[in-house]
Amino acid sequence: MTVLFSAPRWDQDVWMGRIRERAPGRALQSAGADGVVDDPEAVRYALLWQAPHGIVADLPNLEVIFWLGAGVDHLMADPDVPDVPIVRVVDPSLTRRMTEWVVLQVLTHHRDQLRYLDQQRHREWRAHRCPMAKDVRVGVMGLGELGRDAAEMLRRLGYDVAGWSRSEKTIEGVACFAGDAGFGAFLARTAILVCLLPMTPATEGILNADLFSRLARDGRIEGPVVINAGRGKSQVEADIARALDDGTLAGVSLDVFETEPLVEASPLWGHPRAILTPHVAAESDPDHLISYVFDQMETFEAGGELVNVVDRTRGY
Amino acid sequence: MTVLFSAPRWDQDVWMGRIRERAPGRALQSAGADGVVDDPEAVRYALLWQAPHGIVADLPNLEVIFWLGAGVDHLMADPDVPDVPIVRVVDPSLTRRMTEWVVLQVLTHHRDQLRYLDQQRHREWRAHRCPMAKDVRVGVMGLGELGRDAAEMLRRLGYDVAGWSRSEKTIEGVACFAGDAGFGAFLARTAILVCLLPMTPATEGILNADLFSRLARDGRIEGPVVINAGRGKSQVEADIARALDDGTLAGVSLDVFETEPLVEASPLWGHPRAILTPHVAAESDPDHLISYVFDQMETFEAGGELVNVVDRTRGY
Repeated sequence: MTVLFSAPRWDQDVWMGRIRERAPGRALQSAGADGVVDDPEAVRYALLWQAPHGIVADLPNLEVIFWLGAGVDHLMADPDVPDVPIVRVVDPSLTRRMTEWVVLQVLTHHRDQLRYLDQQRHREWRAHRCPMAKDVRVGVMGLGELGRDAAEMLRRLGYDVAGWSRSEKTIEGVACFAGDAGFGAFLARTAILVCLLPMTPATEGILNADLFSRLARDGRIEGPVVINAGRGKSQVEADIARALDDGTLAGVSLDVFETEPLVEASPLWGHPRAILTPHVAAESDPDHLISYVFDQMETFEAGGELVNVVDRTRGY
Repeated sequence: MTVLFSAPRWDQDVWMGRIRERAPGRALQSAGADGVVDDPEAVRYALLWQAPHGIVADLPNLEVIFWLGAGVDHLMADPDVPDVPIVRVVDPSLTRRMTEWVVLQVLTHHRDQLRYLDQQRHREWRAHRCPMAKDVRVGVMGLGELGRDAAEMLRRLGYDVAGWSRSEKTIEGVACFAGDAGFGAFLARTAILVCLLPMTPATEGILNADLFSRLARDGRIEGPVVINAGRGKSQVEADIARALDDGTLAGVSLDVFETEPLVEASPLWGHPRAILTPHVAAESDPDHLISYVFDQMETFEAGGELVNVVDRTRGY
């Protein structure tokens, strides 16, 4: 029952150490950025994150892939993934971290924190009118685990929250829109847009100039504002930079980018109304993540069902 | 039943206009920074905020003072306040605004937002480990309406929250400490301190070097951090500046100051780990505030009871 671990962008020693602590009896292999697996026949489970394509192509006894993140687009782009269940991470700790980051960004824009920080640098004491949260319309795109939790917390803080998703959803106190039919009305009532969409062909480049022009400009907050912590490929960064320059957008907070790390030449770095963080919105706690994977592995071996298995036709 | 309005630091035209809309039948007078009242005999109700001392000394028919804020220390320092009920503002909209500001500041420090903004200026892509909210110990000093609401929201966000107040309080999911006996234990477990205390002789200068040295340094977050949106005179700003310089404090967020506006020479303006806002954490919405006052006035005239009347021995 050998476990293969490959996450070339993480600290391998740390992760292998934690895995050994959680599952001391398991045989373990690791693979780096070259994707070389020492003993392919032995591998039953692959624990992967941003692992090199082709790594799972020749593992004849592979039973389950555990993808150590929420979004599986990197894996789905690998043509050599065998037909075994792929379990993705739906980790409450990851969900709560994402909600922290989203709430921080919504409040930062709503409460004009960047302007006050700028005034502080000039030793300037000046108050600005600010609407109450109930008068600020926040819209959350993507109502999976992450979007739902963020929407509920924003509602508790008093915001006027709507949500949009591909299929119909219901969240108490949140106006839910769905599909193409609901998209225009959702955008038209949204002054602060939070994107937590997964990466699929339908969401690629969805945050573009056309969408920005359809957001609400209601005058109560300086807006609109776009916040993205879903996937970098959902956004067209050239359009974002242009929209910030010409005032179509009053601000953005981005944790994900078309290419990561973000290239040094990107104009977004220097924009006074852009907040950029280096893909840290929802880092899973390693211990939580390892428990999640090995608990499922043990359930699976005892004949139980895997949960959060990726539907390959949907792509998440 | 003439109403006197005096709030020299607010826009008098805006407020008088809103009052006329809410209570078109009432006779109105206003007084500015000189405190001159045109027809003192007529005044039954005084609506005041940061009004000049002595303004209520010679109003023979005054029945109620409505103080248009939560903290009445400015009024209590006036030796000429007659023995009439003083109603202070306990405004849910003010409470929610304060909670927004407090949550924003706690998240900003916890999620290292200042460091990421600084890295952004240098086009630097670098992630830092950050504990989960459940591993961050937040302590709220002052458990009145404001403190209670902030503590509850921080708990919902997942923080490990304690509270401290003069008298015993109970808040679900929040470890409550009280009085001198509980103060040391409260400080020793607190890495992010939120102060929402009223101004009384007992709270003057309470945020000082001795207190800072007793806060928790638990290594999970870079701390300790002090956040004050209660009263400026609760803090010793020279001690705060020194504690930031020598590392006793890792950060502060201050919305109130010993003297307002904060003097240009204050070293706090320029400190990279200080966030200063110009007393805007919890500005009441004028419409909410005016409804609150006139609803109470009408209840009072119909023989009903005033609520949120100041207890002069406690000072709030």
